[in-house]
Amino acid sequence: MTLPASWTSPLPSPDSEFSEQAQARQNVLTKPPGSLGRLESVAIALAAQQRRALPAVDKVHITIFAADHGVCCEGISAFPQEVTAQMIINFAQGGAAISVMAKHLGASLEVVDLGTVGETPRHMPGVLSSPIAPGTKNLLTEPAMTDSQLEQALAAGDQAAERASQSGSELYISGDMGIGNTTSAAAVACALLGEPATRLVGAGTGLSADAISHKADVVTRALERHGQDQTPTALLASLGGFEIAAMAGSFLGAAARGIPVLVDGFIASVAALAAVRQQPALLEWLHFGHCSAEQGHQRILDALHAAPLLNLGMRLGEASGAAVAVPIMRSACALHNQMASFADAGVSDGSSAS
Amino acid sequence: MTLPASWTSPLPSPDSEFSEQAQARQNVLTKPPGSLGRLESVAIALAAQQRRALPAVDKVHITIFAADHGVCCEGISAFPQEVTAQMIINFAQGGAAISVMAKHLGASLEVVDLGTVGETPRHMPGVLSSPIAPGTKNLLTEPAMTDSQLEQALAAGDQAAERASQSGSELYISGDMGIGNTTSAAAVACALLGEPATRLVGAGTGLSADAISHKADVVTRALERHGQDQTPTALLASLGGFEIAAMAGSFLGAAARGIPVLVDGFIASVAALAAVRQQPALLEWLHFGHCSAEQGHQRILDALHAAPLLNLGMRLGEASGAAVAVPIMRSACALHNQMASFADAGVSDGSSAS
Repeated sequence: MTLPASWTSPLPSPDSEFSEQAQARQNVLTKPPGSLGRLESVAIALAAQQRRALPAVDKVHITIFAADHGVCCEGISAFPQEVTAQMIINFAQGGAAISVMAKHLGASLEVVDLGTVGETPRHMPGVLSSPIAPGTKNLLTEPAMTDSQLEQALAAGDQAAERASQSGSELYISGDMGIGNTTSAAAVACALLGEPATRLVGAGTGLSADAISHKADVVTRALERHGQDQTPTALLASLGGFEIAAMAGSFLGAAARGIPVLVDGFIASVAALAAVRQQPALLEWLHFGHCSAEQGHQRILDALHAAPLLNLGMRLGEASGAAVAVPIMRSACALHNQMASFADAGVSDGSSAS
Repeated sequence: MTLPASWTSPLPSPDSEFSEQAQARQNVLTKPPGSLGRLESVAIALAAQQRRALPAVDKVHITIFAADHGVCCEGISAFPQEVTAQMIINFAQGGAAISVMAKHLGASLEVVDLGTVGETPRHMPGVLSSPIAPGTKNLLTEPAMTDSQLEQALAAGDQAAERASQSGSELYISGDMGIGNTTSAAAVACALLGEPATRLVGAGTGLSADAISHKADVVTRALERHGQDQTPTALLASLGGFEIAAMAGSFLGAAARGIPVLVDGFIASVAALAAVRQQPALLEWLHFGHCSAEQGHQRILDALHAAPLLNLGMRLGEASGAAVAVPIMRSACALHNQMASFADAGVSDGSSAS
C-alpha cells in the first residue's frame, strides 16, 4: 500500500521548553496559581505545540469530510441516505450548524466530498469534489473499502492538513457527514478496543431502543466477519468509512506539520483512536472539544485518556462540538497572553501570607 | 429596613410564548432534533427571557463588586487583605483575568468598590467608588454588617442592574473580589442549606488541609453565633459580605428589569442562592456559567437545580468562569438564529425514514 508519509513516519514532538516557559508565566499572573484550571493547561499545551511563548488559535481550519455508507441498506439510521449529499449543499450554502459556527468563529471551512449516493452539483464554492466511490460497500457482507480506496481516503486527509498548513492555521479541526457513520465508527471502535457492540452502539441521529438493538446486532455480525483484522489501517478498510479514514489521516497529517488538533465528537474520536493506535505520539497533539451524548463516546475518550473541554449533550457531528469549544481555547490564550503579572501590577502574591 | 423594590416586589416571568416559538424553530433546523443539546435549551430560555424570536447576548454587562472582610483577622485566607484594593487597581488597569476577558468578549466592565482595608486612588476609570465601610466586621464575633450597611449593599447591586438596563444589556454578569469571601460565602450557604461547615468550606485561593480545617472551625463557630437567623436578608447581614449582598441584589435587580443573568462560581452562586431564597421566581432568569473547583460549589448548584455550562476546574472568582461561558451562549444564539430549516435547505428530515 502507498500510504501518506504522515501515516507511517514518526511525528515531531511538542517543544517542552515552551511548555516550561508557559507554566512559569502562568505561575506569576495575577491569580492564585492553578485557579484558571483547564485554561492554564490548554495554553501551556498550545505553547509547546506551536513553539511560541504566546499561543493563539485565531486561524482555525475546519475540514468536513462527507461520504456515504453501504451499511445503510441494513436500516441502521433514522435519516435517509440522500441526506449526506443534501447536507453537502447545505454546508456550501451556509445553512448547516458548522457553516454558522465557522462564520461565527471566523474560521475557514472546506467540505471534501469523498463520494455520496445522492448527486451534488459539480462546482460548489467551498466544496472539494474528490469522490472515491458512491459510498462504501456494506461492511456486514464485505470489506467497506478496498486498499486502494483506503489509500485515497487517507491521502485526502493528509491533503487537508497540508492545506491547513499552507494557510498558516493555528488549529486544525475535522468533522464528519455521512448517514450511517455511527454504525461504522462503533464497529471500528469495538474492534480497536475489544468491546462488545452493545457498549459502543448508540442512538446516532435518533434511533428507538429497538432500532439501536438492531444496529448493535449489525455491528456484532460485522465484527464476527472482520474483527480479526488487527492493524488500525486494516480495520479502517474493512469497517470504516471514507470520511472516518480521511479524518484519521488528517489528524496525523496535521500533527506531522506541527498543527494542534481539536477533536470533535464520537466519529472524530473514533478516527482519532485509530490514528493514535497507528502512532501513539499523536496524542500529544490532540485537544478534545466535547463529550457527545452518543453512547460510547465516553468509553472512547477514556481509552484516549482524554478530558474534553465541554459536555453539553451535543450529538450532531460535522465538527459542531469542536467548533463550540474553540472560544474556550481562545479565552485560554487571551488570559495567558494578556494578564498582568504580580510584579507588573504591584499585587502581593500569597507567598508571604498565612 | 429600606430595601430595593427588586428585592421585595414580585418578579416578571419569562414569556412562554417565545419559548414555545423558539422550541418549534429548533425542531425544524437542519439537524436531528435535540442534537445541539444544551445549546438548544439556552437559546430557548434566552428567547423567553428577552421576549424575542432571535435572542442575542452581544451586549454583556459585567459588574465586579469588591469589598474586604473582617473575618480575615482569623487567618482564613492564603492572600493578605491588601490584595483586594490592589486587585481593584489591577481591574482598572486591564491586567486581571476579568479585564482581559471583558475586552476579549467586547463586554462592558465596571468595578464597584464597596469598601476595602487598603487604599485605592480616588478616581480610576471603570471604578465606581461607593464605600460602605473599610470591610465588614469579623463575623465570628459580631454581625458582619449593620442593617443600614446591608441596605447600601443591596442598593448598590440594584443600581448596577439599572446601569445594565440603561445601556441595553442583553446579559448581566456579576463577579466578586474580596480576600476572605469564601469563608463568608460558605457561612451564608451553610446557614441557608443547613449543611455543616466541613461540607461547604474549601481551599479558597489555595489553603493547606490544616488551614481548611481551621477555616471550617471558624465557620462552625460563626454559625453557632448567627445560624439562628432565618431570612436570607438577615443571614446576608450577619454572615455575608458587602460584595456578596450586592451580587444578590444585582441578580434580583437584573431579573426585575427583564435581563437574563449568567452566574459565576462559588461566591456568585451563594449570592444567587440567597436571592433565590428571597424570591424563588429568580431561578427562571438564571444561567450558570461553570462549576468551580471550590469544594461546596456543586452542593450549591444542586440546591439551585443548576446545570452549569462549563466544568473547567476554575476557581478564580471575579466573574471569570461566567465570562468564559459567554461564547457558549453566543454560539447557541448564532445557531438558533442563522441555521437553515429542512424546508429552506431542501434536506430530508427523519420523519419518513426507518
